Amino acid sequence: MGKARILMEALPYIRAFRGKIVVVKYGGASMDDPSLHASFAGDVTLLAMVGIRPVIVHGGGPQISAAMSSAGIEPKFVNGLRVSGPEAVAVVQRVLAGDINPHIVALLNGHGCPAVGLTGLDGAMLSARQLDPDLGLVGEVEHVRTDLVFDLLESGMVPVIAPIASGPGGEIYNLNADTAAAELAIALKAQKLVYLTDVEGVRRNRDDPGSVISRMDLDELAELDDSAEIGGGMRPKLDSCQRALKGGVAQAHILDGRVQHALLLEIFTPEGIGTMVVP
Amino acid sequence: MGKARILMEALPYIRAFRGKIVVVKYGGASMDDPSLHASFAGDVTLLAMVGIRPVIVHGGGPQISAAMSSAGIEPKFVNGLRVSGPEAVAVVQRVLAGDINPHIVALLNGHGCPAVGLTGLDGAMLSARQLDPDLGLVGEVEHVRTDLVFDLLESGMVPVIAPIASGPGGEIYNLNADTAAAELAIALKAQKLVYLTDVEGVRRNRDDPGSVISRMDLDELAELDDSAEIGGGMRPKLDSCQRALKGGVAQAHILDGRVQHALLLEIFTPEGIGTMVVP
Amino acid sequence: MGKARILMEALPYIRAFRGKIVVVKYGGASMDDPSLHASFAGDVTLLAMVGIRPVIVHGGGPQISAAMSSAGIEPKFVNGLRVSGPEAVAVVQRVLAGDINPHIVALLNGHGCPAVGLTGLDGAMLSARQLDPDLGLVGEVEHVRTDLVFDLLESGMVPVIAPIASGPGGEIYNLNADTAAAELAIALKAQKLVYLTDVEGVRRNRDDPGSVISRMDLDELAELDDSAEIGGGMRPKLDSCQRALKGGVAQAHILDGRVQHALLLEIFTPEGIGTMVVP
Amino acid sequence: MGKARILMEALPYIRAFRGKIVVVKYGGASMDDPSLHASFAGDVTLLAMVGIRPVIVHGGGPQISAAMSSAGIEPKFVNGLRVSGPEAVAVVQRVLAGDINPHIVALLNGHGCPAVGLTGLDGAMLSARQLDPDLGLVGEVEHVRTDLVFDLLESGMVPVIAPIASGPGGEIYNLNADTAAAELAIALKAQKLVYLTDVEGVRRNRDDPGSVISRMDLDELAELDDSAEIGGGMRPKLDSCQRALKGGVAQAHILDGRVQHALLLEIFTPEGIGTMVVP
Amino acid sequence: MGKARILMEALPYIRAFRGKIVVVKYGGASMDDPSLHASFAGDVTLLAMVGIRPVIVHGGGPQISAAMSSAGIEPKFVNGLRVSGPEAVAVVQRVLAGDINPHIVALLNGHGCPAVGLTGLDGAMLSARQLDPDLGLVGEVEHVRTDLVFDLLESGMVPVIAPIASGPGGEIYNLNADTAAAELAIALKAQKLVYLTDVEGVRRNRDDPGSVISRMDLDELAELDDSAEIGGGMRPKLDSCQRALKGGVAQAHILDGRVQHALLLEIFTPEGIGTMVVP
Amino acid sequence: MGKARILMEALPYIRAFRGKIVVVKYGGASMDDPSLHASFAGDVTLLAMVGIRPVIVHGGGPQISAAMSSAGIEPKFVNGLRVSGPEAVAVVQRVLAGDINPHIVALLNGHGCPAVGLTGLDGAMLSARQLDPDLGLVGEVEHVRTDLVFDLLESGMVPVIAPIASGPGGEIYNLNADTAAAELAIALKAQKLVYLTDVEGVRRNRDDPGSVISRMDLDELAELDDSAEIGGGMRPKLDSCQRALKGGVAQAHILDGRVQHALLLEIFTPEGIGTMVVP
Repeated sequence: MGKARILMEALPYIRAFRGKIVVVKYGGASMDDPSLHASFAGDVTLLAMVGIRPVIVHGGGPQISAAMSSAGIEPKFVNGLRVSGPEAVAVVQRVLAGDINPHIVALLNGHGCPAVGLTGLDGAMLSARQLDPDLGLVGEVEHVRTDLVFDLLESGMVPVIAPIASGPGGEIYNLNADTAAAELAIALKAQKLVYLTDVEGVRRNRDDPGSVISRMDLDELAELDDSAEIGGGMRPKLDSCQRALKGGVAQAHILDGRVQHALLLEIFTPEGIGTMVVP
Repeated sequence: MGKARILMEALPYIRAFRGKIVVVKYGGASMDDPSLHASFAGDVTLLAMVGIRPVIVHGGGPQISAAMSSAGIEPKFVNGLRVSGPEAVAVVQRVLAGDINPHIVALLNGHGCPAVGLTGLDGAMLSARQLDPDLGLVGEVEHVRTDLVFDLLESGMVPVIAPIASGPGGEIYNLNADTAAAELAIALKAQKLVYLTDVEGVRRNRDDPGSVISRMDLDELAELDDSAEIGGGMRPKLDSCQRALKGGVAQAHILDGRVQHALLLEIFTPEGIGTMVVP
Repeated sequence: MGKARILMEALPYIRAFRGKIVVVKYGGASMDDPSLHASFAGDVTLLAMVGIRPVIVHGGGPQISAAMSSAGIEPKFVNGLRVSGPEAVAVVQRVLAGDINPHIVALLNGHGCPAVGLTGLDGAMLSARQLDPDLGLVGEVEHVRTDLVFDLLESGMVPVIAPIASGPGGEIYNLNADTAAAELAIALKAQKLVYLTDVEGVRRNRDDPGSVISRMDLDELAELDDSAEIGGGMRPKLDSCQRALKGGVAQAHILDGRVQHALLLEIFTPEGIGTMVVP
Repeated sequence: MGKARILMEALPYIRAFRGKIVVVKYGGASMDDPSLHASFAGDVTLLAMVGIRPVIVHGGGPQISAAMSSAGIEPKFVNGLRVSGPEAVAVVQRVLAGDINPHIVALLNGHGCPAVGLTGLDGAMLSARQLDPDLGLVGEVEHVRTDLVFDLLESGMVPVIAPIASGPGGEIYNLNADTAAAELAIALKAQKLVYLTDVEGVRRNRDDPGSVISRMDLDELAELDDSAEIGGGMRPKLDSCQRALKGGVAQAHILDGRVQHALLLEIFTPEGIGTMVVP
Repeated sequence: MGKARILMEALPYIRAFRGKIVVVKYGGASMDDPSLHASFAGDVTLLAMVGIRPVIVHGGGPQISAAMSSAGIEPKFVNGLRVSGPEAVAVVQRVLAGDINPHIVALLNGHGCPAVGLTGLDGAMLSARQLDPDLGLVGEVEHVRTDLVFDLLESGMVPVIAPIASGPGGEIYNLNADTAAAELAIALKAQKLVYLTDVEGVRRNRDDPGSVISRMDLDELAELDDSAEIGGGMRPKLDSCQRALKGGVAQAHILDGRVQHALLLEIFTPEGIGTMVVP
Repeated sequence: MGKARILMEALPYIRAFRGKIVVVKYGGASMDDPSLHASFAGDVTLLAMVGIRPVIVHGGGPQISAAMSSAGIEPKFVNGLRVSGPEAVAVVQRVLAGDINPHIVALLNGHGCPAVGLTGLDGAMLSARQLDPDLGLVGEVEHVRTDLVFDLLESGMVPVIAPIASGPGGEIYNLNADTAAAELAIALKAQKLVYLTDVEGVRRNRDDPGSVISRMDLDELAELDDSAEIGGGMRPKLDSCQRALKGGVAQAHILDGRVQHALLLEIFTPEGIGTMVVP
């Protein structure tokens, strides 16, 4: 019967990934489109229930722009990175830690998955330095303290992390969520780093929907990089994948978060979906 | 998509049964028919991998009759229970502990499920007294020591138990495997006791294949019992179910072991299969 | 010499309170006045360093009113409790969890005290039901799950908790911080519940600054209650003290948070300060 | 008084061997002669009770030949190793795992020693490859997994191991028990490897009963080996001793299992008995 | 052979007493006669090595009288209890804690038994009140704190305890060693309390050396008590036995400490020696 | 307010030294002058209560000379080391282990600090060899076993150690307490080694009370050493400091034990007192 076959298909993946950490960057449609929330929450819950250890890192989203504009702050971007003045950082922090993070926690708890919301300030988890004076209070991760996250994982909880960090002088920095996810994956010695995005995967040819790459290694990624065929939003993600794989993460994934249960299908079925990058 | 839906369907069952003990009486076609071996081994392995704790109790089967006849011993039955003289017990013991048990262990290990074969003698697990002087060395369980089984479960192993016990004078008794499974389920405070049989389930009307009962409670079972509509082989199983449920087991199941992945379908799908008895 | 004498004076209090939980409701001037921040952070850090286990519960403050008004929401109060419509709750939550909570965490971490910010949603810590349909999304605590807090305390961390809870239907409720602190103190079997307020303590006579009560028991509190001499903001605090003491908390304190190191002086010196209520 | 002196004599040996693993190859008269069973069981029990950790590896014996002949299988030997066709292996396995092993377990349990019967299949303990295509399903040990044995020892149990192993394709191999005992002793980092045999020890001169060697080192053993004075059954045992000592075992013993309490006398008295080989 | 038989005879006693606590009151000839020291040390070491947990309580002896007289203090006795003025207590304490106790510790360590010397002051183990104003600083045990002794036993060490206790005002009391041993046996839930004395055991008839009682229960002891046939030094020991047995100790023994290995013979041989009292 | 400021001043020191071992050599006026006892006991108790782990090593004092003379033994010194004949050693041992050690234990327990008195014999902690045949039974430390001390520290107890050790032949040696303290500090990987002395500290110029050195490193100490300006009693202490610092101890202190709460002031105030030596 079909049901049993599909469940049995998942067995080798459960065996392979039990006890392993999977860092999921949650964002894009999968976060912004309420019709995908149950799918995401179910996937994370199932991962946790079969003994895999998910860690969620989320970005901001349309809420930030809305909050910015309602606060009268004009968002500015340089090289795809938001320029952050003090008021902007305060707005971003309120939205990330005070709005999006608790909602993800509530969503997961509502599915029976014991989640705990954190920022990089908690337990002094993420220390940052200024990335570029031009960008204001945008930080880059300098050090990751993992004890709090390991504590929570040991207790069977799912950490949900907002990308905010403290600087050497106590100032609070915004972090790029993609980068923060990669740094966390490295520090936690994660098995997988997964980006939930709004594309089907990485295309070999930007204009050819049929050219999505199913699997590539770091060499292929490097070549791809040079061929400059990747759209603006994808390049930083691929850079993060590269950094994570060089830092010891075994597998990085670009998934299409617009697909229901993308995470589940990638992890528990032989087909996989999206693009996987390996060292 | 279908695959994800089916995996998600399993989630509430995984959540409900994680960490719980499921005692499976393995026998009949599911054991005797090699084409069902991979199905059984896969099911048990999946249970173990998602954190459910299966304990397998097996009976003998056609091998015993074959060994008996090749040893020139005529099997005798009284009330469905085999009369066991010393030579017969020796043959049964050799087949159970020396043939069937290692093959189940090898089958499970071959699927990546860390199994350990035991008899009731190991760790003085099962103590028995003579059931009936007429039946010879057939015992009934007097005491179950659970420390060895709990030790193995704690280490993530799956115990596979042959129904042999030691008597007060050191003599070795054969046990009825159905009964032994029930006694173990009670002593281990199991969540479920599952019988893999060669029927679709318990029929309300012996002659009506459409009358298979999906779920009944102890009262309904008692009435059924009195209506005497159950065939010979089923009555002792139902008696064992009754005893187990009265002893604290939460759910007892009569499954059709001839169906591929019967165990998986019962435990991880909303339909269930066969007959479930609850207190 | 004076220094040694003062340190020695602290010894019996350290001995008495080591390993005990002290729930501190942080608010009022001690939170709103930056010149008092270092004092608060130092006190909490010292408590944690000598082996006492502080748990901080904070309210909102002027930031909420500011955020409300900048969002164009008119705050309304009924019986001293804020009426909370959905937009108001969203603003409150953003300020509590996204602004005040991370700042307290950063403040404590900056003093070398390993703090972790939480809301009542984390680990499903606080479950609430609607207090009063007239008040909108204001909840009252129905159940406290303590495992996450105990986990963090066991790891030597200081939990900082924003008074937000989830309701039975997944809706998010605002909680009164004073009440939430009392419920947490009861559930955590705290030794002390401390309110940092903007008054010197409870006065026996509302108009007589010299009538501050140093210590009273529940009977005296009850009489006082009936004499109706307590100002608006104090009554709910005293009700919470009463509830906490009846629920097993050993000592409740109304401290003057405007005094530098109020917490330290109360806990580590024989004089104490403010009003202590005991069963 | 004599009793006290004898008990005190044992003290340095108990102190020296507490917590150490002693692998005992059980076979020959000590296993086949019922009048020696109580002696063996008592010795093993005493070892276990004073904190030494015995691990028993047994061979087959006359039962195998009897079972072979009653099954109409002609035993064949090449270089002292039994040639094993599929039917023969099935018979050997039934006798080892189904007959001898449970009887040793029952014997030890009957003396109050908590024994657990295992085969090399349990917990995937022994992996083998084919020794020689001419010998059929005779294996040589390729890998020993020790976790199950250490688990059981940690729980105070005495493992009793039948020399059966699984091959790379899931096939079941017979192992030479002497060799299996040596491999287990190496993998378990045993202090001692003891062979219970039917001779007084190793003679320097095959025909001189007075030339039994009390103690020799590996060099002396090598010379002896070359002098070719050792009878057929002894050579493989000496080869196993050599391999075990080179693999890190501290002491190997050839004992006369026909002597009551040979094990006890060897381990707990200054005289020792039989031949000890040291590196 | 004799050696093996004697070792096997010890087996049931080792099994019965493993992990159990045996409090030994050490004194009389066994302590004062150097030719018996090795016997005592060997016995205690063997007990410890086979997993029994001895706790030694010692008295003073001739050294005290010698120290008294060299300090010019005249010892006085009332009802067999030493009257203790402050100088006398100081002398007794010096001899007990500074002379006898370290020598026992050195003796045991010299036999490979890891001993730790304690007084009742250590870890506030023994609290006492004044027994009788007439007796001066003689105390009776009021409370026993067992955590230090259990800690040491858990680490495999043998506590050697001098009978000194602290009083409510910090004053130091001498304790009767027999009584202190009984109180410790009760508090430690000891299996056995053993007095090493200078008599063969309790005689039914004071003048008949052949009337030594091998075993009696509390009723028989009570009658004996009333028959007043016990010599002066024995009565307090029997009172202590009685109190210990009523307090939950399973067996109390009066042994002849003048016999080499009296302790060993009592515990590990079926004959036993001296007098055993049971509830 | 002053009190709070002083308590806050202690915070960085508590944070720095929590969980660290501080070996205190107790002697001189701080031990001999009863008016300083409460100060010492309070200091040690406070250290223990805030999570620092003090280990006390004490010397003898005037009691030894008194006991010597009352025993008619003339004390002799060579190079500042007491010549110890057997009778003298016996007297020293009685005073150290039987008088001074229990009094320190009682003193600390009386302040609520759970202390345990030990000698170097306990748990075979200190092994010694003869320092110089001319000095008789004076030993120098050859080996330190730390398991007993770590066990007690782990249980929250404060070890109080008398400087007595056992020699290779079981003989008992007196140790110089300053040296023993240094060897213990090295073996325990102590953070600090503190000598409580009867001087204000080390003077740069022996005759200039104003030349007390507040802090120096090993080089400065070496120069000082060569300038030979240090009085007799100080040189061995400085040699011990040197040895301890070279052996891995982070800080050594010469404190003025005549000052009330010298230990507390040194450890918990920024001024410190006396002389600190660092590597």
